[in-house]
Amino acid sequence: MGNAGGRIVCAGLGPGDPDLMSVRADRLVRGAAHVAYFRKSGAQGQARAIVTGMLRPDAQEYPMEYPVTTEIHFSEPDYNRQLAAFYDDWAAKLAKLAETETVLVLCEGDPFFYGSFMHLYTRLQGRARVEVVPGITGMSGCWTATGQPITWGDDVLTVLMATLPEDELTARARSTDALVVMKIGRNLEKLRRALTAAGRSADAWLIERGTMKDERVLKLSDAVDAPYFSIAVVHGRGRRP
Amino acid sequence: MGNAGGRIVCAGLGPGDPDLMSVRADRLVRGAAHVAYFRKSGAQGQARAIVTGMLRPDAQEYPMEYPVTTEIHFSEPDYNRQLAAFYDDWAAKLAKLAETETVLVLCEGDPFFYGSFMHLYTRLQGRARVEVVPGITGMSGCWTATGQPITWGDDVLTVLMATLPEDELTARARSTDALVVMKIGRNLEKLRRALTAAGRSADAWLIERGTMKDERVLKLSDAVDAPYFSIAVVHGRGRRP
Repeated sequence: MGNAGGRIVCAGLGPGDPDLMSVRADRLVRGAAHVAYFRKSGAQGQARAIVTGMLRPDAQEYPMEYPVTTEIHFSEPDYNRQLAAFYDDWAAKLAKLAETETVLVLCEGDPFFYGSFMHLYTRLQGRARVEVVPGITGMSGCWTATGQPITWGDDVLTVLMATLPEDELTARARSTDALVVMKIGRNLEKLRRALTAAGRSADAWLIERGTMKDERVLKLSDAVDAPYFSIAVVHGRGRRP
Repeated sequence: MGNAGGRIVCAGLGPGDPDLMSVRADRLVRGAAHVAYFRKSGAQGQARAIVTGMLRPDAQEYPMEYPVTTEIHFSEPDYNRQLAAFYDDWAAKLAKLAETETVLVLCEGDPFFYGSFMHLYTRLQGRARVEVVPGITGMSGCWTATGQPITWGDDVLTVLMATLPEDELTARARSTDALVVMKIGRNLEKLRRALTAAGRSADAWLIERGTMKDERVLKLSDAVDAPYFSIAVVHGRGRRP
C-alpha cells in the first residue's frame, strides 16, 4: 500500500485571522480528511471557528470536548483526574486512527506555547508519528494590534498568567521591561492592583480578540471585564537609535 | 485616480522556512512591486533569503545596508549616531516612495518583537500609512524544533538577550520557569556560566537556524559556538494533568 501508516499533525492556526495562518497550516487545513480540535462542551471552539469555510466537505470532524473548564478550580484533585482521563482517552483514539490515517489537530496560536495539545503530545510519544507546525502566537497578534513594538534592543520580556498570586505578579511586573499577561478573566482586578503597585498601570493595554473582526484595544485601566481571548501588554522601552 | 497614495507594509516572514510565512505575507511578497529589506553590507540578508524565488521578476528592490553591525559596540556614541542617521535616511526615502507606491518591507520573524523595522516605524508616524503583519517568531520555530513544549499551565516565560550582564542572566534564569535567550554569539561562555550558576545548564538547548534546511538542535553544553541565528531555550515544567 506504500503508506506504512498515518500520522498526527498539530497545526498552529495563529491568533485568529485565517489570513495569518501559515501557508503550511492553510494547506493542511484545506486538505485534511480527519480533523480534531478542542472545545468547551456546547461551544463551537476557537480553533474550529478560525477554519470556517476551509474544511473539505467530506472531512471527518472529532470535537474533543473538555470535561471541565472553570467549573472546578485547577488546584482540586478532581480537576486533574478528569482532565487526565480526557487526554488519555483522546490520545488512545487518535493513536488508533493514526495507524492508517493522517489526522490534523487544530490549535489556536502556537501549539507548544501554553497549548492544550501538549497534553496529547506527551501521551502520544512512541505510539504515533506526531508533527507540530508552529503558528503566530495570540500575543503577537495582540501587540501588533496596539501599533507599538513590544520589545526593543536588549529589553527583557516576561510572559505570565494572571492566575499567579498578586505579590508575584507585582514583583515580576516591577522587574521586567516588557510584559504580556494571559488568562486574565476573573483575575482582572488582581492584575490591576499588581500593575499599580509595580508602577506599570498607566502603560498597560488590554487587547480583546486580537486580529479578529471584533478586535478591541483599550487601556487596561478602562476595561470593565476581560473576555476569554484577551491579553494585557506593557511595552518595553529599550535602546532605540 | 481612486488611490490617495501608497503605503508601507512590513510583513513578518516567520522563522525561516518560507512555508511558515503567513498566507497574507506570502500574498504580499508575491505581489509586491517595491520591496525593501535590511542586510549587513555585502551579505544577502536573511529576510531576502527567505523569499528566494518568490518576488515578481519586475520587483524593484531596496536593500537597506546597516552602516555598522558589530564593528562598534552599541554602547559607543558613534554606534547610535551612525544607526540613527541610517534610519532617518531610509525613513525619508520610504516615506517619499509611499506617497504614490505601496512598499513592502521584509522582516524575519515578527516585526514588533525585537525587529529592526520598529526604528523606521517610529520615524514614519505621521509621514506615511504604515501597516505591520505579525509573523511566527524565530523562538517559536526554535522551540518547536526541540520537540518539547516551551510552557505549560501557569509557567512564567522570560525572554532575554545574552548581552545582559552575567549576574543578571543568572538571577533571571534562576527565577523563571521557561527561558529563551537570543543574541548569543560571543556571549556563549558567559551564558553557560550564568545557566550553570542558576542550576539550569543541564536543561538548556541551543537551536541553530530553526526551521531552516540546516537546522541543528543540541545541548547548550555541547555547543562550540553560537551562530547568528541561534537561540537557547530552557523548557518550563508547569502543571500537566
